[in-house]
Amino acid sequence: MLGNFCYSNPTKLYFGEDSLDQLGGELQNYGKNVLLCYGGGSIKKSGLYDQVVSILKANGKEIFEDPGVMPNPTVEKLYEGCKRAKEGKVDLILAVGGGSVCDYAKAVSVSTYCKEDPWDKYYLRMEDVDNPIIPVGCVLTMVGTGSEMNGGSVITNHEQKLKIGHVFGDNVFPKFSILNPRLTFTLPNYQMIAGFFDIMSHILEQYFSGEDDNTSDYLMEGLLRSLIHSSKIAVQNPTDYEARSNIMWTATWALNTLVAKGKSTDWMVHMIGQSVGAYTDATHGMTLAAVSLPYYRMILPYGLAKFKRYAINVWNVSPDGKTDEEIASEGLDRMEAYMKELGLVMNIRDLGVTEDMLDGIAKGSFIMDGGYKTLTYEEIVSVLKESMKG
Amino acid sequence: MLGNFCYSNPTKLYFGEDSLDQLGGELQNYGKNVLLCYGGGSIKKSGLYDQVVSILKANGKEIFEDPGVMPNPTVEKLYEGCKRAKEGKVDLILAVGGGSVCDYAKAVSVSTYCKEDPWDKYYLRMEDVDNPIIPVGCVLTMVGTGSEMNGGSVITNHEQKLKIGHVFGDNVFPKFSILNPRLTFTLPNYQMIAGFFDIMSHILEQYFSGEDDNTSDYLMEGLLRSLIHSSKIAVQNPTDYEARSNIMWTATWALNTLVAKGKSTDWMVHMIGQSVGAYTDATHGMTLAAVSLPYYRMILPYGLAKFKRYAINVWNVSPDGKTDEEIASEGLDRMEAYMKELGLVMNIRDLGVTEDMLDGIAKGSFIMDGGYKTLTYEEIVSVLKESMKG
Repeated sequence: MLGNFCYSNPTKLYFGEDSLDQLGGELQNYGKNVLLCYGGGSIKKSGLYDQVVSILKANGKEIFEDPGVMPNPTVEKLYEGCKRAKEGKVDLILAVGGGSVCDYAKAVSVSTYCKEDPWDKYYLRMEDVDNPIIPVGCVLTMVGTGSEMNGGSVITNHEQKLKIGHVFGDNVFPKFSILNPRLTFTLPNYQMIAGFFDIMSHILEQYFSGEDDNTSDYLMEGLLRSLIHSSKIAVQNPTDYEARSNIMWTATWALNTLVAKGKSTDWMVHMIGQSVGAYTDATHGMTLAAVSLPYYRMILPYGLAKFKRYAINVWNVSPDGKTDEEIASEGLDRMEAYMKELGLVMNIRDLGVTEDMLDGIAKGSFIMDGGYKTLTYEEIVSVLKESMKG
Repeated sequence: MLGNFCYSNPTKLYFGEDSLDQLGGELQNYGKNVLLCYGGGSIKKSGLYDQVVSILKANGKEIFEDPGVMPNPTVEKLYEGCKRAKEGKVDLILAVGGGSVCDYAKAVSVSTYCKEDPWDKYYLRMEDVDNPIIPVGCVLTMVGTGSEMNGGSVITNHEQKLKIGHVFGDNVFPKFSILNPRLTFTLPNYQMIAGFFDIMSHILEQYFSGEDDNTSDYLMEGLLRSLIHSSKIAVQNPTDYEARSNIMWTATWALNTLVAKGKSTDWMVHMIGQSVGAYTDATHGMTLAAVSLPYYRMILPYGLAKFKRYAINVWNVSPDGKTDEEIASEGLDRMEAYMKELGLVMNIRDLGVTEDMLDGIAKGSFIMDGGYKTLTYEEIVSVLKESMKG
């Protein structure tokens, strides 16, 4: 049954090849000082950095540079960004990059005027924001996280071996995001396919929960079918605009709060994957890929009806003459074949996990209770061991 | 290919059995004077009127009554509402009712401070709004139009025999909408099923256009499957909360701009249906039901690939051993069987259309060019004649 909820998503999206042309107009809504966040050198190489800077200057903005946002933004980097944002008295944080840069920008947005350690308050204790928030805008260069239209923000604390995502409210969502599928063309294959699986995992985390038959489930089946269709094209031809644009749009709707409304969700794959990430610094989407099938095969008996539905509606498994278990398993087998076709990393050993890390990874995996089975510590270890074999 | 677009939907939705509890909080955001728009006596009979008035009073609002909004709001009623809104210097227009009341509220919202005849400016000439807009809030009591989360507003001019819908920009969208599925339980069967078909038609008008393979198409297939599933349950048991809530949620997403983004759309069924409505004052959804199949069967050869996809992905037609035409036709046959199962009106004669009206209805149908075939006047007459037979 659709539960009670509030839906509000104020992010304005500009989508398409010419969408950067809209940046100037949006900048009019904010003051003079802009914190410009980005990652390594890729946006300088591609020329995007120069384009953005020239738009900022043409609109009379003073730029406070904040480069070097890493793929898994660290708490130390967060402190540094807050310092810069405060010193610059910035009126807008402009994130130019992928989900990590956008996540980081939101973290700086809520943390700059936080009166205590933001890691403790907003990540460890996941409290609500009660201090001034600096507005965020985003120019997206890779897809996957959905960070461009939600309140999610993942920060890593290497010292504590913790990678925690806080999903903030709609006051923290980017005010605007610019989505140009062409900006994603130059992404290396490894990052591209990891992003594809990140999208798939976002949908599955919300799909594999609850016994209901909600509109959301049907929407998610549509998103999954679109993603599977377009990702197969994109992996063969990364510059296929139609495929890349559909994937970009699917990624946004996979995690902009819509499909979770009124239903329960799981997120256990992300909890285990993030813990793997905290130990290995591996690419997020690959950590999800490596643990998904061992996890889903373990919980299949507890969510049999949904795994059967998944097999039929998403993977076109014919149910004729088969038991529910056979249908459900065949769905996961087809998912496995698809994942291998994309070239995803199927086991955590390939991500740098060693036997001695398993205990720590399992202990660092927050246990969620919205899925079909609430895992024990032993079961998490078992999922990890299964993935080591893969 | 996904075209360039801007997506922005600022409407805040409160969904669920207790959603009216949120009205008080929202009222804080607006001034003292509220225009309260509603239709006939149904909200007084159900007790909703008393509940809303008591919330308004508890929040210190002065109420300006605007009852009697008819199912197809007229231009005369619009003038009357504008006069009342102006005299009351209202700060908020609160629509309590179905799509017609919400459409009407938006019309009053843009028309009150319009310096010329709003019918001419905003409906006949469809100009952009360049005068102050009064914010609109909505408490929805029936589903179908999607008016609770979009800028659509249909007004009827009986003298000119015209029923015109203007889709206004996001500054005209309701600021908030309250969606309680239980409020829809008391709707008579005829209105309920007409609403169901209105939802279906909204999706099909956006689906049957373009040769692309967009994420939107997959989302629409999901919405259609959800609608078909839940409407079959609701027609048997109108108080099935799960079915009614899923339908309510589907209706919102069928027409809140999302699924049309980046693609072309048709809307010819609505143009013909609205013209039938202008002549007969028949229930909107029934006019769409009565003309849909004659229209789709006429254009099927021009959009064969999409009609085939529709048959397979929405109606589970097995393609084995059949020509594309056979598959596509079987999809429309299944749609016909479903429509009859719901009890929809399948021909315009039953809606009061007589032979002598056909010329006028055809001439009053705006011809759209986004579908698979741009109709001629003669073809519209032919669709109408086919529907007279049905």
